[in-house]
Amino acid sequence: MTQWVYSFGGGKADGSAAMKNLLGGKGANLAEMSSLGLPVPPGFTLTTDVCTHYTDNSSTYPDDLKEQVISALASVEKSMGLKFGEPGNALLVSVRSGARASMPGMMDTVLNLGLNDETVEGLAVASGDERFAFDSYRRFLQMYGDVVLGVDHHMFEDLLEDHKDRRGVHLDTELGAGDWRELVVAYKEMVKKELGYPFPQDPHEQLWGAIDAVFGSWMNRRAQTYRILHNIPEKWGTAVNVQAMVFGNMGNDCATGVAFTRDPANGENAYYGEYLINAQGEDVVAGIRTPQPLSIAGKHPGSTDQLSMEEVMPETYAELLDVRARLERHYQDMQDMEFTVQKGRLWMLQTRNGKRTTKASMKIAVDMVEEGLIDKGEAISRIDPGQLDQILHPTLDPVAERQVLGVGLPASPGAASGRIVFNSVDAESWTERGEKVILVRVETSPEDIGGMHVASGIVTTRGGMTSHAAVVARGMGTPCVSGVGSLKIDYEEKTLSALGETIKEGEIITIDGTSGEVMKGAVATIQPEFSDDFSRLMEWVDETRTMGVRANAENPTDARTAREFGAEGIGLCRTEHMFFDPERIIHVRQMIVAGDEKSRRAALDKLLPYQRQDFVELFTIMDGLPVTIRLLDPPLHEFLPQSEKDMANVAEAAGIAVSDIEDRAAQLKEFNPMLGHRGCRLGITYPEIYEMQARAIFEAAADVVAAGYSVHPEVMIPLVAVKAELDVLKTLVDQTAQKVREEKGCDIDYSVGTMIELPRAALRAGEIAETAEFFSFGTNDLTQTALGLSRDDASSFIQIYREKGVLDSDPFVTIDREGVGELVRLAVERGRATKPGIKLGICGEHGGDAASVEFFHQAGLDYVSCSPYRVPIARLAAAQAALGVKAKDNA
Amino acid sequence: MTQWVYSFGGGKADGSAAMKNLLGGKGANLAEMSSLGLPVPPGFTLTTDVCTHYTDNSSTYPDDLKEQVISALASVEKSMGLKFGEPGNALLVSVRSGARASMPGMMDTVLNLGLNDETVEGLAVASGDERFAFDSYRRFLQMYGDVVLGVDHHMFEDLLEDHKDRRGVHLDTELGAGDWRELVVAYKEMVKKELGYPFPQDPHEQLWGAIDAVFGSWMNRRAQTYRILHNIPEKWGTAVNVQAMVFGNMGNDCATGVAFTRDPANGENAYYGEYLINAQGEDVVAGIRTPQPLSIAGKHPGSTDQLSMEEVMPETYAELLDVRARLERHYQDMQDMEFTVQKGRLWMLQTRNGKRTTKASMKIAVDMVEEGLIDKGEAISRIDPGQLDQILHPTLDPVAERQVLGVGLPASPGAASGRIVFNSVDAESWTERGEKVILVRVETSPEDIGGMHVASGIVTTRGGMTSHAAVVARGMGTPCVSGVGSLKIDYEEKTLSALGETIKEGEIITIDGTSGEVMKGAVATIQPEFSDDFSRLMEWVDETRTMGVRANAENPTDARTAREFGAEGIGLCRTEHMFFDPERIIHVRQMIVAGDEKSRRAALDKLLPYQRQDFVELFTIMDGLPVTIRLLDPPLHEFLPQSEKDMANVAEAAGIAVSDIEDRAAQLKEFNPMLGHRGCRLGITYPEIYEMQARAIFEAAADVVAAGYSVHPEVMIPLVAVKAELDVLKTLVDQTAQKVREEKGCDIDYSVGTMIELPRAALRAGEIAETAEFFSFGTNDLTQTALGLSRDDASSFIQIYREKGVLDSDPFVTIDREGVGELVRLAVERGRATKPGIKLGICGEHGGDAASVEFFHQAGLDYVSCSPYRVPIARLAAAQAALGVKAKDNA
Repeated sequence: MTQWVYSFGGGKADGSAAMKNLLGGKGANLAEMSSLGLPVPPGFTLTTDVCTHYTDNSSTYPDDLKEQVISALASVEKSMGLKFGEPGNALLVSVRSGARASMPGMMDTVLNLGLNDETVEGLAVASGDERFAFDSYRRFLQMYGDVVLGVDHHMFEDLLEDHKDRRGVHLDTELGAGDWRELVVAYKEMVKKELGYPFPQDPHEQLWGAIDAVFGSWMNRRAQTYRILHNIPEKWGTAVNVQAMVFGNMGNDCATGVAFTRDPANGENAYYGEYLINAQGEDVVAGIRTPQPLSIAGKHPGSTDQLSMEEVMPETYAELLDVRARLERHYQDMQDMEFTVQKGRLWMLQTRNGKRTTKASMKIAVDMVEEGLIDKGEAISRIDPGQLDQILHPTLDPVAERQVLGVGLPASPGAASGRIVFNSVDAESWTERGEKVILVRVETSPEDIGGMHVASGIVTTRGGMTSHAAVVARGMGTPCVSGVGSLKIDYEEKTLSALGETIKEGEIITIDGTSGEVMKGAVATIQPEFSDDFSRLMEWVDETRTMGVRANAENPTDARTAREFGAEGIGLCRTEHMFFDPERIIHVRQMIVAGDEKSRRAALDKLLPYQRQDFVELFTIMDGLPVTIRLLDPPLHEFLPQSEKDMANVAEAAGIAVSDIEDRAAQLKEFNPMLGHRGCRLGITYPEIYEMQARAIFEAAADVVAAGYSVHPEVMIPLVAVKAELDVLKTLVDQTAQKVREEKGCDIDYSVGTMIELPRAALRAGEIAETAEFFSFGTNDLTQTALGLSRDDASSFIQIYREKGVLDSDPFVTIDREGVGELVRLAVERGRATKPGIKLGICGEHGGDAASVEFFHQAGLDYVSCSPYRVPIARLAAAQAALGVKAKDNA
Repeated sequence: MTQWVYSFGGGKADGSAAMKNLLGGKGANLAEMSSLGLPVPPGFTLTTDVCTHYTDNSSTYPDDLKEQVISALASVEKSMGLKFGEPGNALLVSVRSGARASMPGMMDTVLNLGLNDETVEGLAVASGDERFAFDSYRRFLQMYGDVVLGVDHHMFEDLLEDHKDRRGVHLDTELGAGDWRELVVAYKEMVKKELGYPFPQDPHEQLWGAIDAVFGSWMNRRAQTYRILHNIPEKWGTAVNVQAMVFGNMGNDCATGVAFTRDPANGENAYYGEYLINAQGEDVVAGIRTPQPLSIAGKHPGSTDQLSMEEVMPETYAELLDVRARLERHYQDMQDMEFTVQKGRLWMLQTRNGKRTTKASMKIAVDMVEEGLIDKGEAISRIDPGQLDQILHPTLDPVAERQVLGVGLPASPGAASGRIVFNSVDAESWTERGEKVILVRVETSPEDIGGMHVASGIVTTRGGMTSHAAVVARGMGTPCVSGVGSLKIDYEEKTLSALGETIKEGEIITIDGTSGEVMKGAVATIQPEFSDDFSRLMEWVDETRTMGVRANAENPTDARTAREFGAEGIGLCRTEHMFFDPERIIHVRQMIVAGDEKSRRAALDKLLPYQRQDFVELFTIMDGLPVTIRLLDPPLHEFLPQSEKDMANVAEAAGIAVSDIEDRAAQLKEFNPMLGHRGCRLGITYPEIYEMQARAIFEAAADVVAAGYSVHPEVMIPLVAVKAELDVLKTLVDQTAQKVREEKGCDIDYSVGTMIELPRAALRAGEIAETAEFFSFGTNDLTQTALGLSRDDASSFIQIYREKGVLDSDPFVTIDREGVGELVRLAVERGRATKPGIKLGICGEHGGDAASVEFFHQAGLDYVSCSPYRVPIARLAAAQAALGVKAKDNA
């Protein structure tokens, strides 16, 4: 018989933390805490296999599930000394989702389940608090009505607002037991009217309705979107946790809170958390009331109205300190815990590895190595390479002038400027128009996920460090400032007011998620400075990894950044980027419109000095490191003038008519430029272009060597499909090198290789390696050709593909291991069979994607090359690959 | 020591016919004839290895070549009793190229070599004909001056014309010995003035100059162009034949001629040839004098001024008859021979397998099987599938009215209409503009190859059945009428005059290469009727081949043609071709501009009846045979209206604004449509389109089955890259089939499969075969993606690639075996590993290319599918592949 239900509580459990795939993160950790003897309210978990069964079998359950649930429920009743549905002694439960990966706010939760017209009276007696009992009941009616029965939550809120209006009060706290009694009646009437049947009074019917709703919510749109954004496979499913209710809102000896064993923002080894007296857990997370700090040390400096738990409930705080120590020792990682205090008694509701900023990640990992808790390899494994991005981007210039509009909580670090927008839809549409936006909301909810994803920064006027906005933003690595109460939002007018200023939609603001400041206008930024923790960690990373990391760069700024970030050379210098400079483009265009080789050569002669100077600078900066230079790649029409004025300029310079230029443009126009007259095809048809570029490289190299630098140019021929192309062009490059050697009397240590970016080249790598001295995989084009998928055109359907589950991830972000990956593996195998020592690298966008870097390591490449800002990510990913750490699964 | 030189003559030879690769065709057959004891003037062959050495080593020879030549020359001297350069007793030689494949007119020839100021006097004495001797000398000066020394042949001709003008004569024959003596002096003076040094008098210097020129000419532009057009690899090289001169122009007991052992036009078993009394061989081939028939039977009916060799030289004719019998028995194939009669003595100068029309090929092959000379397999092997095209196209309707302008020789069969052009350049430029042209010339020369290649038909006003024009046209399968003397060409005015009519450039004429007629205007044509020989042969073909042949067809006409031509089903029905009909396109466009699924479905509902009717017709015609139907493939923007009027129509029909249509067009625009939103990507994003198509297929099938026909639809999903695409769409098709089955109560025998046209699909064929019931290789797109080469854009550089030797053949014509071919082989292997019985076919253009068909046979495909007119070609090629006959080499 399959075990579909796992019980926990009372110092023991059927499951454990190791069973996360089956029990979900929450269920597995509840079981683990229970086994550790921590105070966990008893309960049970319906496994993720139940979810899969439910999804695959038209929302039906395994036959023996019901029986197992009944049996597990009986254990909870026994443990709590309560009875489900028994009026005077009712067990109440929470029903929550719990997937393998944390999906904050995406799944639905129901609390206080088991309440009905009879049990609520019993609760009033048992708790001695009629107001509490009926507040709990109306909360349950609202939550269950919304989530399970599908009655819009506004319907409930409207009734509540009406009631408050009639009573002339503003706050919920001003309402008494009688008010909630009246509202309970009103809620039930409204539900019956909306649905045509009454709110279910049978607790078992309530329970199964809630379980259905949680499993059903796995397939709702919000959950699907979140999974797509976070590469979570649909097949994982969610578990359902049913757990005895404990109440943090039974009076002032009750509380609820969240705590991190270390500071999730900076990683400091200090207990960090927030709590609310007399509240339910959702109140903290939803950010409706602004919570208080856990410890005295956690109070904001100078704040007088904050009361820490350490001061208010010293005994419970001491208990929590003990829990902190035990959990961190047990899990060997920073924990994020939820707890409730009911009538002075501490209950642990959840623990999990805490989300943290990258900065905190690194500090915690380095500290734990020093504390002897983990080793260096484990420290390296702990850092998510994708999140490293957070600390690799510019921060605000501390001396830049700034006009601060308000200060909130530093919820997710990093600085960002952008145009202000007030809802998710606007955020997406402004972004589509190419604008960077800052999304400003009173608070955020799962409905805002789309807008949060595209926003450069997020601001909320309500909610704490653990509010939805803060948690999600940290997960995304997006700067966020939360709870800036001084800002006033007018959604109607789309304005933000603060300190007498009114900012309209579309105006630029700047936020600093590290300081919590929100500023008017754009504020200057500076390059990130790396912490000592970062440097330590990256030293360990470099000791660990076996694969080299280079950068894609063609200008001095990028080349310098690349070196600073630890690049071990340039893996891709795209020479065409050097052609667009205003003083050069005229010669490029003259070259293109030239009617014969002679005029083409004349134009190329004018380009030569510029191109040579480019290489002189690059070689100087990259002193001692290899520089891979790709000869001209894009089709010539990309360089042609578009405006009438530019056409006239080119016509004059070339001594031809504007109509000739139009003719040439028409002649060069292509149906599929990606598959057109580009790459080495230009070198074959216009050898003088590649000849000029080769000359510029070798002349520059000779000059720089003469100045005492060490230069290693690697001349790379793009888009080779057949070996003969490379043969012809390598001969041209070698002959040019020979000529320059004779002219300059200087030997250059260079090599000639090719991009492997067409399926045919990958298949014929064996013979191409006879000529090539290195391969660099152009996985962008290899993806486009292997999949027959134009990167520029795919956006119209790739999202639909992911939503329908046809593609698990975007193959332009993470390499398609099975298709493109097989071509890479074949080419590696065949290339090395011909020339065992051939140097193999990759210079597509995938070089900066951790999951792809893992694949390239496994495929045996010598190096990856990526954009300068992603070099540390690639270094870390390469180290993790060397350690055998599995990158985030995209399968 | 390498043997660089092979001697022949006097009843023996170093080489043989089997050594064609080393000795070239001419040299190998001279050796073979010599060994057979036929009268061959003695000589020797410098091998093709010498050519390769010469090409690869900056035009230098192997060290020991000179010595071997001297020795071979001594043998010739001994055999002829003459001495090279000895004034009174001079050996004269011809120097000719001879490559492995026949390259008519493309390589250079020098005759009468060894003549100088002294030996010419000896020749005058020895021949007793001073006029002959000096005519020979001036011919030598002219030929050698042009070919070896690079003096333009017009310079010689101008001197000759001047001389004739001064003498007041028009014909060469009116000039005497004194005239030639004077011209010899004038020629030598002119050459000295042009070159700055005198014409070489040393015969050895002459010989090496000629050898250099022949080897050098292997790399000249004409030869390169010919090789590109005929897929002849550069590395083959040419041999050089040096052979003792014999003279057909020493008087009226001399003659020269060419003969075919059977009629090359219709294949009849009758001796066929032409000769000229008192002429050199070049006179026949060049078409300057119109030659006489060899036999009495060969005389044109009713002709009175023709004198056959049979009548004029009965003894030599009898000797030739004997040679004919011996050669055909020896070679077991129809021979094309060149001979010279010197003073009544017959000399054989060449034999080779004769070029012939396809009709003749088939008759000869079938006759030889009946004569017991060859077996059926050999007969099948003898037919060039590419040439089968000749008899598969329409001929003139015999009852159509025609205005005949003139009648010439039926030089290459088939009928063609086109716009008249008068030179090769115009032929090419008119063709580029999309026009069909008829090239009309007085005579053609190798310089005209380009124009002849693109022309739909060729007419010459001078020259016989073996003239350059006739030989080349037959080789190309292009209709040709030669020697239409009644036509007058004015190259200046670009007009043709005949019978009082003047036809200007660009006007349409029609030619019939089977009757020799040239007609004004376009004349109606009829479908070809196949000869009994064709039917016999195709029966043997079908018995022999193991691979099926289907046709690509989507309309009833094509489907009927396909069946007539022996197609065993439809391998590709492109449903989008059915969308362009005027009464349908409006609904297609409505569907595309629809803003939601509902409006899209409304438009699709209107398309359904049309699409269903299409399939009803196809299924009826293809009764009993499988029909593979590809669901919608091209991107939607291909169907959008372009003109303002069409846009307005669509806007009105769809009830939207024209600007909405423009917006939709802008939204659908793609950078690389080939790699865009097309194929199954449409089916995934707009499932209702594929659903409608599937419904049309199954409803049509049910109707046709109800009418008593046998229907086997194969539903094909295009552009699959990942298995999930096929999974989703196969489910959709199966569900639709199920619905139709329920509605119609009729079970259809159908299958669902996919195109393999992306490299990823080929690599993942193993898992795709889990779902697919068949694969059809789309080698067009597979070539585009594997090579990263857009077929629409490649023309700008693919010619340069072939000229530079980077590509040996056009990969869109003949499959790239190494790259695309490996993908096919991998997919076959992996697909069959998953599903051993999976049906495998190919439906790209390559399905009608013989070399590609051979590959597909070797790769183990079940069938090829090609355009209806190419079905017989594919059948023949498949049979040859089954016999192991190597298709024309493109490697």
